[in-house]
Amino acid sequence: MFPNHADPLVTAPAETAILAMLLAESPLSRVELARRTGLSSTAVTKAARPLIDDGYLHELPPERTAPGAGRPANPLTVTSGREFFAGVKISADTLYGTVCDLRARMRTTIHRPLGERDPDSVSALLIDLVAELLDTRPEFRERTRHLGIAVSGDVDRAAGRVRYSVLPGWRDVPLAKAIAGATGLNVTVENDVKALTVTEHWFGEGIGTEYFALVTIGAGIGSGLVVNGRLIAGAYGVAGEMGHIGIDPAGPRCHCGQTGCVEAIASSDAILAAVRGATGREDLDFDGAVLLARGGNPAAREVFARAGRAIGTGIATLVSLLGPERVVVTGEGLDTYDLFGAHIKDAYEAHCFKAAAKCPLTLRPLPWEEWARSAAVIGIQALFP
Amino acid sequence: MFPNHADPLVTAPAETAILAMLLAESPLSRVELARRTGLSSTAVTKAARPLIDDGYLHELPPERTAPGAGRPANPLTVTSGREFFAGVKISADTLYGTVCDLRARMRTTIHRPLGERDPDSVSALLIDLVAELLDTRPEFRERTRHLGIAVSGDVDRAAGRVRYSVLPGWRDVPLAKAIAGATGLNVTVENDVKALTVTEHWFGEGIGTEYFALVTIGAGIGSGLVVNGRLIAGAYGVAGEMGHIGIDPAGPRCHCGQTGCVEAIASSDAILAAVRGATGREDLDFDGAVLLARGGNPAAREVFARAGRAIGTGIATLVSLLGPERVVVTGEGLDTYDLFGAHIKDAYEAHCFKAAAKCPLTLRPLPWEEWARSAAVIGIQALFP
Repeated sequence: MFPNHADPLVTAPAETAILAMLLAESPLSRVELARRTGLSSTAVTKAARPLIDDGYLHELPPERTAPGAGRPANPLTVTSGREFFAGVKISADTLYGTVCDLRARMRTTIHRPLGERDPDSVSALLIDLVAELLDTRPEFRERTRHLGIAVSGDVDRAAGRVRYSVLPGWRDVPLAKAIAGATGLNVTVENDVKALTVTEHWFGEGIGTEYFALVTIGAGIGSGLVVNGRLIAGAYGVAGEMGHIGIDPAGPRCHCGQTGCVEAIASSDAILAAVRGATGREDLDFDGAVLLARGGNPAAREVFARAGRAIGTGIATLVSLLGPERVVVTGEGLDTYDLFGAHIKDAYEAHCFKAAAKCPLTLRPLPWEEWARSAAVIGIQALFP
Repeated sequence: MFPNHADPLVTAPAETAILAMLLAESPLSRVELARRTGLSSTAVTKAARPLIDDGYLHELPPERTAPGAGRPANPLTVTSGREFFAGVKISADTLYGTVCDLRARMRTTIHRPLGERDPDSVSALLIDLVAELLDTRPEFRERTRHLGIAVSGDVDRAAGRVRYSVLPGWRDVPLAKAIAGATGLNVTVENDVKALTVTEHWFGEGIGTEYFALVTIGAGIGSGLVVNGRLIAGAYGVAGEMGHIGIDPAGPRCHCGQTGCVEAIASSDAILAAVRGATGREDLDFDGAVLLARGGNPAAREVFARAGRAIGTGIATLVSLLGPERVVVTGEGLDTYDLFGAHIKDAYEAHCFKAAAKCPLTLRPLPWEEWARSAAVIGIQALFP
């Protein structure tokens, strides 16, 4: 039987813990599951039973580890294709879509350039894209009930609304309701950096960490923070705004109205404006600024260096306040890592407080499809209470 | 029967929730307790029963609210004097001690100047002070089993060790073990800012908040952060280091080795050094610097203004990253609030990101005894699992 449309798949704490653990790391033996969750072996077996009956988990053949090692291990694993999850990232000029399986592996991807970017036009294209994604294989159509949508900006996830986005005309758009009505899917809308943080925490570098942070660099500078295993939302819906912390009173004015924000120094637009200002070459585009710096132009190189120091100082601030176990740095800004990577690391090490400096930075290139995958993972979250 | 020495008083989730709520806010009716905890009325009654039997809770006479309003309300309240908690704050020159009741009200306070400040001398004085505190009333001696000790610096609470403090010779001191052995009490050692944050979260401005922050200003600049109702500890034991985030690349060198930290600009030592530098008056002490600024000396006033801007920027950073519901600012630095208060607020408002600026700052003067009270509250925490 397929679960009800929008109900969580698991509700009991033991089932929740076991499913979450197996989604991230399959296969695991019942003994290992009991050890990691703190449940008894009996409780593990009992909690796994309905998930096996519903086809979400299955047993692998017993593995005999060594002669005389006692009862053979009988690992449990997720049945990846039991349910699928659609995900769409709305970027400034493109829709990226994917269908993922239960273990967040992308089974298909499609992208479409945006024409008009108003909410109605984007919604219409998104509905077509989802139909196309689900039509690629009959089992996608049969076994997909959740769609996640990731978009940059201010998202009210609970209400399914995009309060604000840089796309023209996107002010308080009830996106989830519109798309759910048209697709028949259960739709969740989430801020893209938060979606990526959840994905990296559940399925990537952050597995098993209680304190974790993800930082994105590029057109914007953002971060997502996990504390005690949960994404920080902020009492007023604002948290993780690493791009808008003030790190230099003598820094440039930011589009947010403040002065000396990390983003005002280190976003790709800020870098381009600074290179133009420093070289007097108003004709440059971002690629031109990169070429100039790579060619050795000292003024251009210093702009990238300053951007790197701003990012490194921002990450150190986050680490000294939150104390994450590890930080993943990602985003399209990594394409110019050769120009500011060393400066990020130097400033990070110079500004991290004492033992917090033990926290490793991992740099992770980010294909656009990964954003779509993170949107699908928001759908996987809907399996849980 | 008095509970076993070091066992938690409550273990079941329902009992834990009810006791925690009544410690912070008594009296509350069973109906109100059920509403706030999400438990059924029957579950509330069942959970309260053992706590009433043990004398920790009692019922107040029924209050009839209005004619015809149905069954009379029968509120539950904490029996404040059922158990007492000793608390000692170790400052740079004084021991502050208190005995608090179950609702964290100070029943007596004593302070003693420190002579020698090495660990053995301080421990001996602390043991005497605790004996004196408990001897002030027979019921303190009879019904105190927990002692909390608060000290600034790097504390390993789980191990009961002070890893580092500014006091001379305090490196990796097994304080809890030594004091427990001599007093027969169950001893917990905690960083003073963390203890104060817990106290303010449980018994002060932070009651009922999921996200909360406390900032202390004075000889040092520190902060404690509560997320999802729990104090952030940091994966490497470092978190909340607001004093050591970099906010000005052109700022002074900090004793921690970094440049442009909030503390390097806004601690009382940093302010004094800057006023001396700006006025050429190396003879000044801190009080002299304050007098000069209050007298209108522009250079001295600008030093305090810069300190205020540094603190305000630091708080805004914390708020933009964490999104607390409210922030309490406290510490002996508030004594000079007239000189930098407006600058704290201006910089805070200028640097808070969007809706995060809704987070109110509350200024709270802090008598030294409050530090001792917060140490006692760490003992109250030991009632819980």
